[in-house]
Amino acid sequence: MISVVIIGKGNVGIHLYKAFLNADGIGVTQINSRNLENVPIADVTIIAVSDDAIAEVSSKVKNSFVVHTSGSVSMISLKNKTDRGVFYMLQTFSKNKEVDFSEVPFCLEAENNEKYLFLEKLAKSIGNNVYQIDSKQRKAIHVAAVFVNNFTNHMYKMGNDICIEHQVPFEILQPLIEETAIKVKTLLPEKAQTGPAIRNDKKTIKNHLDLLNNKQKEIYTIITKSIQNGD
Amino acid sequence: MISVVIIGKGNVGIHLYKAFLNADGIGVTQINSRNLENVPIADVTIIAVSDDAIAEVSSKVKNSFVVHTSGSVSMISLKNKTDRGVFYMLQTFSKNKEVDFSEVPFCLEAENNEKYLFLEKLAKSIGNNVYQIDSKQRKAIHVAAVFVNNFTNHMYKMGNDICIEHQVPFEILQPLIEETAIKVKTLLPEKAQTGPAIRNDKKTIKNHLDLLNNKQKEIYTIITKSIQNGD
Repeated sequence: MISVVIIGKGNVGIHLYKAFLNADGIGVTQINSRNLENVPIADVTIIAVSDDAIAEVSSKVKNSFVVHTSGSVSMISLKNKTDRGVFYMLQTFSKNKEVDFSEVPFCLEAENNEKYLFLEKLAKSIGNNVYQIDSKQRKAIHVAAVFVNNFTNHMYKMGNDICIEHQVPFEILQPLIEETAIKVKTLLPEKAQTGPAIRNDKKTIKNHLDLLNNKQKEIYTIITKSIQNGD
Repeated sequence: MISVVIIGKGNVGIHLYKAFLNADGIGVTQINSRNLENVPIADVTIIAVSDDAIAEVSSKVKNSFVVHTSGSVSMISLKNKTDRGVFYMLQTFSKNKEVDFSEVPFCLEAENNEKYLFLEKLAKSIGNNVYQIDSKQRKAIHVAAVFVNNFTNHMYKMGNDICIEHQVPFEILQPLIEETAIKVKTLLPEKAQTGPAIRNDKKTIKNHLDLLNNKQKEIYTIITKSIQNGD
């Protein structure tokens, strides 16, 4: 039996706690990050709090192995005196939506091989996709995730605005959105590109710009150029 | 039996031909757009050629009902003297990838209700999702599609570049990419937004910028601002 303490009751903490509850061979306790006086002893203590609070929370934990779950904080930011590691799950967690951990990539890091193998065992108790990722790589993944998640979602938002303005249901775009996402599973994004920008179809680009407001025009123009430059 | 002629052997023409071949109650013929001397007579003639060629091709067709398949060309750009319409399928078609027409939204337009109902029947012989969309709405959909497909794919491309540079497999982002796409099925994109931009997390934004090259920085900065401004 592996004993796990999760510190933090945000989206990540809550979903992770539920997953470990249902896992074989794991005993899990969850505590609020404001009650650090009596952290139960455990094989691993998982700090799932906001990035800014990780250093302070970790400085108060005396347990033997402490990890955080952040994509953008380095392992050495942990201020516990014992072994350190990272247990980063690369997925977007929403409050009211179940997480399928079998699909989540686990990005793991530890100060030594023994602890790494321990984290791997822990991840495999709830998931399948485990990667050994150091702090530098994890930072790069986090930036890449901003592009493919946050920025992509903003493209959906701008598409939705255009639909609202022209009285078209956004749902009409959903199959295209999903196909676009699935396509890059088998085709490099560079090879998957289509549309007026990559074709340098000036007439269509002009027609599109005529339909947009100034803010939409700015984004349209800059991304079109970026596609054409192969950025 | 409905008789269909498809003019054009590009991606759209080829996939559409295959779909009609397998449909009940449809007889379909496909011809190359360079052989317009002997277009077979048919209940509907579908012009699936590049946008720029639609007017010219349509001017040479004498059949009674002629439609095109373009998202960005208006119905009245058709130059045949008989009834006109539009049979636009809102999906990205790739040469070597099967198309599931049951998932494709059909955006239909015709000059009168009788012809519209005919197109609806035709679309339902191969698909399920049929929308009555006029030329103005279709143009807006086409621009929105550029945002959610071409521009989104460019975000994937930039994410992939970051992965390559930092020796991380791009596949690690695939579950996040797919979850991001599926999320907007049930949540407005505006509500689905997360990450450093919407949180105005300046420290993380600065860390991200430090990791990017100048061109990536430009895109990162502009989209971050656009998210923060609620554009």
